[in-house]
Amino acid sequence: RRAAVVVGLDQYVDQVRHLLRPGTQVRTSGLGDEELRAADAVAQAAAGNAVALLGSGDVGVYAMASPALLQAGEDVEVVGVPGVTAALAAAALLGAPLGHDHVSISLSDLHTPWPVIERRIMAAAAADLVTCFYNPRSKARDWQLGTALDLLRKHRSPQTPVGAVRQAGRPGERIWWAPIADFDPADVDMLTTVIVGSSTTTVVAGRMVTRRGYRWSEDVPNMIE
Amino acid sequence: RRAAVVVGLDQYVDQVRHLLRPGTQVRTSGLGDEELRAADAVAQAAAGNAVALLGSGDVGVYAMASPALLQAGEDVEVVGVPGVTAALAAAALLGAPLGHDHVSISLSDLHTPWPVIERRIMAAAAADLVTCFYNPRSKARDWQLGTALDLLRKHRSPQTPVGAVRQAGRPGERIWWAPIADFDPADVDMLTTVIVGSSTTTVVAGRMVTRRGYRWSEDVPNMIE
Repeated sequence: RRAAVVVGLDQYVDQVRHLLRPGTQVRTSGLGDEELRAADAVAQAAAGNAVALLGSGDVGVYAMASPALLQAGEDVEVVGVPGVTAALAAAALLGAPLGHDHVSISLSDLHTPWPVIERRIMAAAAADLVTCFYNPRSKARDWQLGTALDLLRKHRSPQTPVGAVRQAGRPGERIWWAPIADFDPADVDMLTTVIVGSSTTTVVAGRMVTRRGYRWSEDVPNMIE
Repeated sequence: RRAAVVVGLDQYVDQVRHLLRPGTQVRTSGLGDEELRAADAVAQAAAGNAVALLGSGDVGVYAMASPALLQAGEDVEVVGVPGVTAALAAAALLGAPLGHDHVSISLSDLHTPWPVIERRIMAAAAADLVTCFYNPRSKARDWQLGTALDLLRKHRSPQTPVGAVRQAGRPGERIWWAPIADFDPADVDMLTTVIVGSSTTTVVAGRMVTRRGYRWSEDVPNMIE
Protein backbone atom coordinates (compact mmCIF):
# COMPACT_ATOMS: atom_id res chain seq x y z
CA ARG A 1 0.00 0.00 0.00
CA ARG A 2 2.97 2.27 0.37
CA ALA A 3 3.85 1.82 -3.29
CA ALA A 4 3.73 4.85 -5.57
CA VAL A 5 3.60 2.62 -8.63
CA VAL A 6 1.74 -0.67 -9.00
CA VAL A 7 2.63 -2.96 -11.91
CA GLY A 8 0.60 -6.05 -12.68
CA LEU A 9 -1.62 -8.12 -14.87
CA ASP A 10 -4.86 -6.21 -15.42
CA GLN A 11 -7.10 -8.86 -13.83
CA TYR A 12 -4.96 -9.07 -10.68
CA VAL A 13 -4.72 -5.30 -10.26
CA ASP A 14 -8.51 -5.13 -10.53
CA GLN A 15 -8.76 -7.43 -7.51
CA VAL A 16 -6.84 -5.04 -5.25
CA ARG A 17 -7.71 -1.68 -6.81
CA HIS A 18 -9.92 -0.75 -3.83
CA LEU A 19 -6.89 -1.06 -1.53
CA LEU A 20 -4.71 1.40 -3.41
CA ARG A 21 -4.12 4.92 -2.13
CA PRO A 22 -5.46 7.74 -4.28
CA GLY A 23 -2.73 8.95 -6.61
CA THR A 24 -1.06 5.58 -7.00
CA GLN A 25 0.19 5.11 -10.53
CA VAL A 26 -1.24 1.89 -11.96
CA ARG A 27 0.50 0.22 -14.89
CA THR A 28 -1.37 -2.86 -16.09
CA SER A 29 -0.78 -5.07 -19.06
CA GLY A 30 -2.26 -8.30 -20.39
CA LEU A 31 -1.32 -11.95 -20.47
CA GLY A 32 1.86 -12.66 -22.40
CA ASP A 33 3.56 -9.39 -21.49
CA GLU A 34 5.47 -10.88 -18.54
CA GLU A 35 8.95 -9.81 -19.61
CA LEU A 36 7.79 -6.31 -20.51
CA ARG A 37 5.97 -6.01 -17.20
CA ALA A 38 9.05 -7.15 -15.28
CA ALA A 39 11.23 -4.69 -17.18
CA ASP A 40 8.74 -1.91 -16.52
CA ALA A 41 8.68 -2.64 -12.78
CA VAL A 42 12.48 -2.68 -12.58
CA ALA A 43 12.80 0.53 -14.61
CA GLN A 44 10.28 2.29 -12.38
CA ALA A 45 12.15 1.11 -9.28
CA ALA A 46 15.54 2.10 -10.69
CA ALA A 47 14.07 5.56 -11.29
CA GLY A 48 13.53 5.82 -7.54
CA ASN A 49 9.88 4.88 -7.23
CA ALA A 50 8.42 2.52 -4.64
CA VAL A 51 7.03 -0.17 -6.93
CA ALA A 52 4.72 -3.07 -6.13
CA LEU A 53 4.81 -5.88 -8.69
CA LEU A 54 1.67 -7.95 -8.21
CA GLY A 55 1.01 -11.63 -8.70
CA SER A 56 -1.65 -14.02 -7.54
CA GLY A 57 -0.61 -16.88 -5.26
CA ASP A 58 3.10 -16.59 -4.44
CA VAL A 59 4.87 -14.20 -6.79
CA GLY A 60 8.02 -16.34 -6.53
CA VAL A 61 6.43 -19.59 -7.77
CA TYR A 62 6.12 -19.79 -11.59
CA ALA A 63 5.46 -16.08 -11.54
CA MET A 64 6.78 -12.56 -11.89
CA ALA A 65 9.54 -12.49 -9.26
CA SER A 66 12.00 -14.45 -11.42
CA PRO A 67 11.89 -12.29 -14.56
CA ALA A 68 11.94 -9.12 -12.43
CA LEU A 69 14.90 -10.22 -10.28
CA LEU A 70 16.86 -11.31 -13.35
CA GLN A 71 16.69 -7.70 -14.50
CA ALA A 72 17.02 -5.85 -11.18
CA GLY A 73 20.47 -4.66 -10.27
CA GLU A 74 22.13 -3.95 -6.93
CA ASP A 75 20.61 -0.46 -7.02
CA VAL A 76 17.08 -1.83 -6.59
CA GLU A 77 16.05 -2.96 -3.14
CA VAL A 78 13.61 -5.86 -3.35
CA VAL A 79 11.29 -7.14 -0.63
CA GLY A 80 9.64 -10.43 -1.53
CA VAL A 81 6.27 -10.97 0.10
CA PRO A 82 5.53 -14.70 0.17
CA GLY A 83 1.98 -15.78 -0.52
CA VAL A 84 -0.13 -18.89 -0.56
CA THR A 85 0.81 -20.62 -3.77
CA ALA A 86 -1.76 -22.62 -5.76
CA ALA A 87 -0.43 -25.95 -4.46
CA LEU A 88 -1.02 -24.94 -0.84
CA ALA A 89 -4.42 -23.39 -1.52
CA ALA A 90 -5.58 -26.49 -3.38
CA ALA A 91 -4.05 -28.84 -0.80
CA ALA A 92 -5.89 -27.20 2.10
CA LEU A 93 -9.20 -27.64 0.27
CA LEU A 94 -8.51 -31.30 -0.53
CA GLY A 95 -7.28 -32.29 2.95
CA ALA A 96 -3.57 -32.67 3.63
CA PRO A 97 -2.06 -34.26 0.51
CA LEU A 98 1.24 -32.37 0.96
CA GLY A 99 1.85 -33.87 4.40
CA HIS A 100 5.13 -35.38 3.26
CA ASP A 101 7.69 -34.97 0.42
CA HIS A 102 6.19 -33.41 -2.70
CA VAL A 103 7.14 -31.89 -6.02
CA SER A 104 5.65 -29.11 -8.16
CA ILE A 105 5.90 -29.59 -11.92
CA SER A 106 4.53 -27.29 -14.61
CA LEU A 107 3.10 -29.19 -17.58
CA SER A 108 3.50 -26.18 -19.85
CA ASP A 109 5.85 -27.26 -22.63
CA LEU A 110 5.93 -23.82 -24.20
CA HIS A 111 8.71 -22.64 -21.89
CA THR A 112 10.26 -26.02 -21.19
CA PRO A 113 10.84 -28.84 -23.71
CA TRP A 114 8.55 -31.83 -23.09
CA PRO A 115 11.47 -34.31 -22.63
CA VAL A 116 12.65 -32.24 -19.63
CA ILE A 117 9.14 -32.27 -18.15
CA GLU A 118 8.76 -35.98 -18.81
CA ARG A 119 12.07 -36.70 -17.08
CA ARG A 120 10.80 -34.84 -14.02
CA ILE A 121 7.48 -36.71 -13.98
CA MET A 122 9.29 -40.04 -14.22
CA ALA A 123 11.59 -39.02 -11.37
CA ALA A 124 8.57 -38.06 -9.26
CA ALA A 125 6.92 -41.37 -10.10
CA ALA A 126 9.96 -43.49 -9.29
CA ALA A 127 10.76 -41.61 -6.07
CA ASP A 128 7.16 -41.86 -4.81
CA LEU A 129 6.72 -38.11 -4.43
CA VAL A 130 3.31 -36.47 -4.09
CA THR A 131 3.10 -34.58 -7.38
CA CYS A 132 1.41 -31.24 -7.93
CA PHE A 133 0.83 -30.20 -11.54
CA TYR A 134 0.69 -26.52 -12.43
CA ASN A 135 -0.66 -25.47 -15.85
CA PRO A 136 -2.05 -28.97 -16.26
CA ARG A 137 -4.15 -28.48 -19.36
CA SER A 138 -5.34 -25.77 -21.73
CA LYS A 139 -7.20 -25.73 -25.01
CA ALA A 140 -3.94 -25.82 -26.93
CA ARG A 141 -2.18 -28.26 -24.58
CA ASP A 142 -4.67 -31.09 -24.22
CA TRP A 143 -2.57 -34.27 -24.11
CA GLN A 144 0.16 -33.50 -21.51
CA LEU A 145 -1.86 -34.27 -18.37
CA GLY A 146 -3.06 -37.61 -19.74
CA THR A 147 0.51 -38.57 -20.60
CA ALA A 148 1.74 -37.44 -17.18
CA LEU A 149 -0.91 -39.54 -15.40
CA ASP A 150 0.00 -42.55 -17.57
CA LEU A 151 3.62 -42.21 -16.44
CA LEU A 152 2.56 -42.06 -12.80
CA ARG A 153 0.14 -45.00 -13.18
CA LYS A 154 3.12 -47.26 -13.91
CA HIS A 155 4.43 -46.65 -10.38
CA ARG A 156 1.28 -46.10 -8.28
CA SER A 157 -1.58 -48.33 -7.26
CA PRO A 158 -4.82 -47.79 -9.25
CA GLN A 159 -6.42 -46.54 -6.00
CA THR A 160 -3.96 -43.66 -5.59
CA PRO A 161 -6.10 -40.55 -5.14
CA VAL A 162 -5.78 -37.67 -7.57
CA GLY A 163 -7.24 -34.39 -6.33
CA ALA A 164 -8.13 -31.32 -8.32
CA VAL A 165 -9.17 -27.81 -7.39
CA ARG A 166 -10.43 -25.27 -9.90
CA GLN A 167 -10.47 -21.57 -9.01
CA ALA A 168 -9.23 -22.18 -5.45
CA GLY A 169 -10.65 -19.57 -3.11
CA ARG A 170 -12.45 -17.75 -5.92
CA PRO A 171 -16.04 -17.67 -7.14
CA GLY A 172 -16.88 -20.87 -8.97
CA GLU A 173 -14.46 -22.95 -6.88
CA ARG A 174 -14.71 -26.68 -7.56
CA ILE A 175 -13.01 -29.47 -5.59
CA TRP A 176 -12.92 -33.12 -6.63
CA TRP A 177 -10.84 -36.26 -6.52
CA ALA A 178 -10.80 -39.72 -8.10
CA PRO A 179 -8.59 -42.81 -8.03
CA ILE A 180 -5.77 -42.44 -10.57
CA ALA A 181 -7.29 -45.34 -12.53
CA ASP A 182 -10.40 -43.24 -13.19
CA PHE A 183 -9.29 -39.61 -13.07
CA ASP A 184 -10.41 -37.86 -16.25
CA PRO A 185 -8.04 -35.17 -17.58
CA ALA A 186 -10.90 -33.70 -19.62
CA ASP A 187 -12.35 -32.20 -16.42
CA VAL A 188 -9.19 -30.09 -15.97
CA ASP A 189 -8.40 -26.69 -17.45
CA MET A 190 -5.73 -24.03 -16.94
CA LEU A 191 -7.47 -22.67 -13.81
CA THR A 192 -7.10 -26.06 -12.11
CA THR A 193 -4.34 -27.43 -9.89
CA VAL A 194 -3.95 -31.22 -9.83
CA ILE A 195 -2.33 -33.16 -6.96
CA VAL A 196 -1.45 -36.84 -7.37
CA GLY A 197 -0.89 -38.77 -4.14
CA SER A 198 2.10 -40.92 -3.26
CA SER A 199 1.93 -44.53 -2.05
CA THR A 200 1.07 -43.28 1.44
CA THR A 201 -1.77 -40.97 0.38
CA THR A 202 -5.24 -42.19 1.25
CA VAL A 203 -8.75 -40.79 1.35
CA VAL A 204 -10.16 -40.67 4.87
CA ALA A 205 -13.69 -39.36 5.40
CA GLY A 206 -13.58 -37.81 1.93
CA ARG A 207 -10.31 -36.01 2.54
CA MET A 208 -7.00 -36.68 0.79
CA VAL A 209 -4.23 -37.26 3.36
CA THR A 210 -0.55 -38.11 3.05
CA ARG A 211 0.98 -39.54 6.20
CA ARG A 212 3.80 -37.54 7.71
CA GLY A 213 6.19 -40.45 7.50
CA TYR A 214 6.64 -44.03 6.46
CA ARG A 215 6.98 -45.18 10.05
CA TRP A 216 4.43 -43.74 12.34
CA SER A 217 5.14 -45.05 15.83
CA GLU A 218 8.11 -42.94 16.88
CA ASP A 219 7.36 -39.28 16.73
CA VAL A 220 10.01 -36.70 16.33
CA PRO A 221 10.18 -33.07 17.36
CA ASN A 222 11.81 -31.58 14.29
CA MET A 223 9.32 -33.16 11.95
CA ILE A 224 7.09 -30.22 12.74
CA GLU A 225 7.04 -27.47 10.19
CA ARG B 1 -10.69 -16.69 16.65
CA ARG B 2 -14.13 -18.20 16.71
CA ALA B 3 -12.74 -21.42 18.18
CA ALA B 4 -13.86 -22.45 21.65
CA VAL B 5 -10.89 -24.77 21.98
CA VAL B 6 -7.35 -24.17 20.73
CA VAL B 7 -4.96 -27.13 20.47
CA GLY B 8 -1.30 -26.65 19.67
CA LEU B 9 2.34 -26.87 20.49
CA ASP B 10 3.01 -24.67 23.50
CA GLN B 11 5.45 -22.34 21.72
CA TYR B 12 3.06 -21.75 18.80
CA VAL B 13 0.08 -21.09 21.04
CA ASP B 14 2.16 -18.54 22.95
CA GLN B 15 2.64 -16.62 19.70
CA VAL B 16 -1.09 -16.11 19.19
CA ARG B 17 -2.33 -16.07 22.77
CA HIS B 18 -3.04 -12.33 22.60
CA LEU B 19 -5.48 -12.96 19.75
CA LEU B 20 -7.64 -15.45 21.61
CA ARG B 21 -11.03 -14.50 23.00
CA PRO B 22 -11.39 -14.59 26.77
CA GLY B 23 -12.76 -17.95 27.82
CA THR B 24 -11.10 -19.90 25.02
CA GLN B 25 -9.95 -23.29 26.27
CA VAL B 26 -6.26 -23.71 25.49
CA ARG B 27 -4.78 -27.20 25.32
CA THR B 28 -1.04 -27.12 24.72
CA SER B 29 1.51 -29.88 24.69
CA GLY B 30 5.19 -30.20 23.89
CA LEU B 31 7.31 -31.46 21.03
CA GLY B 32 6.88 -35.15 20.32
CA ASP B 33 3.22 -35.27 21.30
CA GLU B 34 1.94 -34.85 17.73
CA GLU B 35 -0.29 -37.91 17.62
CA LEU B 36 -1.76 -37.19 21.04
CA ARG B 37 -2.37 -33.59 20.06
CA ALA B 38 -4.09 -34.63 16.83
CA ALA B 39 -6.24 -37.14 18.72
CA ASP B 40 -7.13 -34.51 21.31
CA ALA B 41 -8.17 -32.01 18.62
CA VAL B 42 -10.33 -34.60 16.86
CA ALA B 43 -11.93 -35.74 20.13
CA GLN B 44 -12.75 -32.17 21.10
CA ALA B 45 -14.27 -31.56 17.67
CA ALA B 46 -16.25 -34.81 17.73
CA ALA B 47 -17.65 -33.65 21.09
CA GLY B 48 -19.15 -30.67 19.30
CA ASN B 49 -16.58 -27.98 20.02
CA ALA B 50 -15.20 -25.52 17.49
CA VAL B 51 -11.53 -26.47 17.57
CA ALA B 52 -8.52 -24.68 16.10
CA LEU B 53 -5.48 -26.90 15.64
CA LEU B 54 -2.47 -24.63 15.29
CA GLY B 55 0.74 -25.01 13.33
CA SER B 56 3.41 -22.66 12.15
CA GLY B 57 3.90 -22.28 8.41
CA ASP B 58 1.29 -24.30 6.54
CA VAL B 59 -0.40 -26.83 8.80
CA GLY B 60 -0.72 -29.21 5.83
CA VAL B 61 3.00 -29.40 5.03
CA TYR B 62 4.97 -31.80 7.27
CA ALA B 63 2.65 -30.78 10.07
CA MET B 64 -0.44 -31.47 12.12
CA ALA B 65 -3.14 -31.63 9.44
CA SER B 66 -2.18 -35.14 8.32
CA PRO B 67 -2.32 -36.90 11.70
CA ALA B 68 -5.52 -35.04 12.58
CA LEU B 69 -7.29 -35.83 9.31
CA LEU B 70 -6.30 -39.48 9.53
CA GLN B 71 -8.30 -39.63 12.75
CA ALA B 72 -11.20 -37.33 11.90
CA GLY B 73 -14.37 -39.01 10.70
CA GLU B 74 -17.23 -37.80 8.52
CA ASP B 75 -18.83 -36.28 11.61
CA VAL B 76 -16.08 -33.67 11.94
CA GLU B 77 -16.18 -30.72 9.58
CA VAL B 78 -12.67 -29.53 8.77
CA VAL B 79 -11.64 -26.21 7.26
CA GLY B 80 -8.00 -26.10 6.23
CA VAL B 81 -6.45 -22.66 6.34
CA PRO B 82 -3.42 -22.62 4.06
CA GLY B 83 -0.38 -20.71 5.26
CA VAL B 84 3.04 -19.68 4.06
CA THR B 85 5.14 -22.80 4.36
CA ALA B 86 8.83 -22.62 5.27
CA ALA B 87 9.93 -23.15 1.67
CA LEU B 88 7.97 -20.10 0.48
CA ALA B 89 9.03 -17.91 3.39
CA ALA B 90 12.70 -18.80 2.86
CA ALA B 91 12.42 -18.46 -0.92
CA ALA B 92 11.03 -14.93 -0.72
CA LEU B 93 13.95 -13.88 1.48
CA LEU B 94 16.52 -15.45 -0.85
CA GLY B 95 15.08 -14.08 -4.10
CA ALA B 96 13.00 -16.32 -6.36
CA PRO B 97 14.63 -19.76 -6.25
CA LEU B 98 11.26 -21.54 -6.64
CA GLY B 99 10.54 -19.84 -9.97
CA HIS B 100 10.30 -23.19 -11.73
CA ASP B 101 9.80 -26.89 -10.88
CA HIS B 102 10.84 -27.73 -7.33
CA VAL B 103 10.65 -30.46 -4.72
CA SER B 104 10.40 -30.47 -0.92
CA ILE B 105 12.21 -33.30 0.86
CA SER B 106 12.48 -33.83 4.61
CA LEU B 107 15.90 -35.11 5.68
CA SER B 108 14.51 -36.53 8.91
CA ASP B 109 15.16 -40.25 8.79
CA LEU B 110 13.35 -40.89 12.04
CA HIS B 111 9.97 -41.13 10.29
CA THR B 112 11.24 -42.26 6.90
CA PRO B 113 14.00 -44.80 6.20
CA TRP B 114 17.14 -43.18 4.78
CA PRO B 115 17.09 -45.28 1.55
CA VAL B 116 13.68 -43.79 0.69
CA ILE B 117 15.00 -40.27 1.31
CA GLU B 118 18.14 -40.97 -0.69
CA ARG B 119 16.09 -42.24 -3.63
CA ARG B 120 14.15 -38.99 -3.59
CA ILE B 121 17.30 -36.86 -3.49
CA MET B 122 18.78 -38.80 -6.40
CA ALA B 123 15.55 -38.33 -8.36
CA ALA B 124 15.64 -34.59 -7.66
CA ALA B 125 19.28 -34.45 -8.72
CA ALA B 126 18.76 -36.39 -11.96
CA ALA B 127 15.60 -34.49 -12.91
CA ASP B 128 17.24 -31.09 -12.29
CA LEU B 129 14.64 -29.97 -9.75
CA VAL B 130 15.20 -27.07 -7.36
CA THR B 131 15.38 -28.90 -4.04
CA CYS B 132 14.17 -27.60 -0.70
CA PHE B 133 15.28 -29.50 2.39
CA TYR B 134 13.11 -29.49 5.50
CA ASN B 135 14.57 -30.71 8.82
CA PRO B 136 18.03 -30.51 7.26
CA ARG B 137 20.16 -31.06 10.33
CA SER B 138 19.89 -31.43 14.09
CA LYS B 139 22.30 -32.34 16.85
CA ALA B 140 21.38 -36.00 16.50
CA ARG B 141 21.15 -36.00 12.71
CA ASP B 142 24.39 -34.38 11.61
CA TRP B 143 25.45 -36.27 8.46
CA GLN B 144 22.29 -36.32 6.30
CA LEU B 145 22.61 -32.84 4.79
CA GLY B 146 26.25 -33.39 3.81
CA THR B 147 25.33 -36.67 2.13
CA ALA B 148 22.38 -35.04 0.37
CA LEU B 149 24.58 -32.24 -0.98
CA ASP B 150 27.15 -34.79 -2.16
CA LEU B 151 24.43 -36.56 -4.15
CA LEU B 152 23.35 -33.28 -5.73
CA ARG B 153 26.95 -32.24 -6.50
CA LYS B 154 27.23 -35.18 -8.89
CA HIS B 155 24.56 -33.62 -11.11
CA ARG B 156 25.01 -29.86 -10.64
CA SER B 157 27.75 -27.44 -11.52
CA PRO B 158 30.01 -26.40 -8.59
CA GLN B 159 28.61 -22.86 -8.96
CA THR B 160 25.01 -23.93 -8.30
CA PRO B 161 23.78 -21.64 -5.52
CA VAL B 162 22.59 -23.12 -2.24
CA GLY B 163 20.54 -20.75 -0.10
CA ALA B 164 19.67 -21.05 3.55
CA VAL B 165 17.35 -19.17 5.87
CA ARG B 166 17.29 -19.61 9.63
CA GLN B 167 14.28 -18.45 11.65
CA ALA B 168 12.52 -16.98 8.60
CA GLY B 169 10.45 -13.98 9.61
CA ARG B 170 11.33 -14.34 13.29
CA PRO B 171 13.78 -12.63 15.60
CA GLY B 172 17.33 -13.74 14.84
CA GLU B 173 16.57 -14.34 11.15
CA ARG B 174 19.66 -15.14 9.11
CA ILE B 175 19.86 -15.43 5.31
CA TRP B 176 22.87 -16.71 3.39
CA TRP B 177 23.93 -18.60 0.28
CA ALA B 178 27.07 -20.19 -1.17
CA PRO B 179 28.02 -22.17 -4.28
CA ILE B 180 27.28 -25.87 -3.74
CA ALA B 181 31.02 -26.54 -3.91
CA ASP B 182 31.54 -24.46 -0.75
CA PHE B 183 28.26 -24.67 1.19
CA ASP B 184 28.99 -25.80 4.73
CA PRO B 185 26.32 -28.02 6.36
CA ALA B 186 27.73 -27.16 9.79
CA ASP B 187 26.08 -23.70 9.55
CA VAL B 188 22.65 -25.36 9.39
CA ASP B 189 20.41 -26.45 12.23
CA MET B 190 16.82 -27.61 12.62
CA LEU B 191 15.48 -24.04 12.45
CA THR B 192 16.96 -23.63 8.97
CA THR B 193 15.47 -24.26 5.53
CA VAL B 194 17.93 -25.05 2.72
CA ILE B 195 17.18 -24.52 -0.98
CA VAL B 196 19.52 -25.96 -3.65
CA GLY B 197 19.20 -24.43 -7.11
CA SER B 198 18.71 -26.27 -10.39
CA SER B 199 20.87 -25.85 -13.50
CA THR B 200 18.96 -22.65 -14.33
CA THR B 201 19.32 -21.02 -10.90
CA THR B 202 21.74 -18.12 -10.77
CA VAL B 203 22.63 -15.35 -8.36
CA VAL B 204 21.82 -11.92 -9.75
CA ALA B 205 22.63 -8.84 -7.66
CA GLY B 206 22.95 -11.08 -4.60
CA ARG B 207 19.57 -12.74 -5.11
CA MET B 208 18.97 -16.39 -5.96
CA VAL B 209 16.77 -16.68 -9.06
CA THR B 210 15.46 -19.66 -11.03
CA ARG B 211 14.28 -18.78 -14.53
CA ARG B 212 10.65 -19.47 -15.27
CA GLY B 213 11.51 -21.73 -18.16
CA TYR B 214 14.27 -23.28 -20.18
CA ARG B 215 13.38 -21.24 -23.23
CA TRP B 216 12.75 -17.65 -22.52
CA SER B 217 11.76 -16.01 -25.80
CA GLU B 218 8.15 -17.12 -26.22
CA ASP B 219 6.01 -16.15 -23.30
CA VAL B 220 2.85 -17.93 -22.40
CA PRO B 221 -0.25 -16.81 -20.57
CA ASN B 222 -0.90 -19.87 -18.43
CA MET B 223 2.63 -19.91 -17.09
CA ILE B 224 1.44 -17.33 -14.61
CA GLU B 225 0.59 -18.64 -11.20
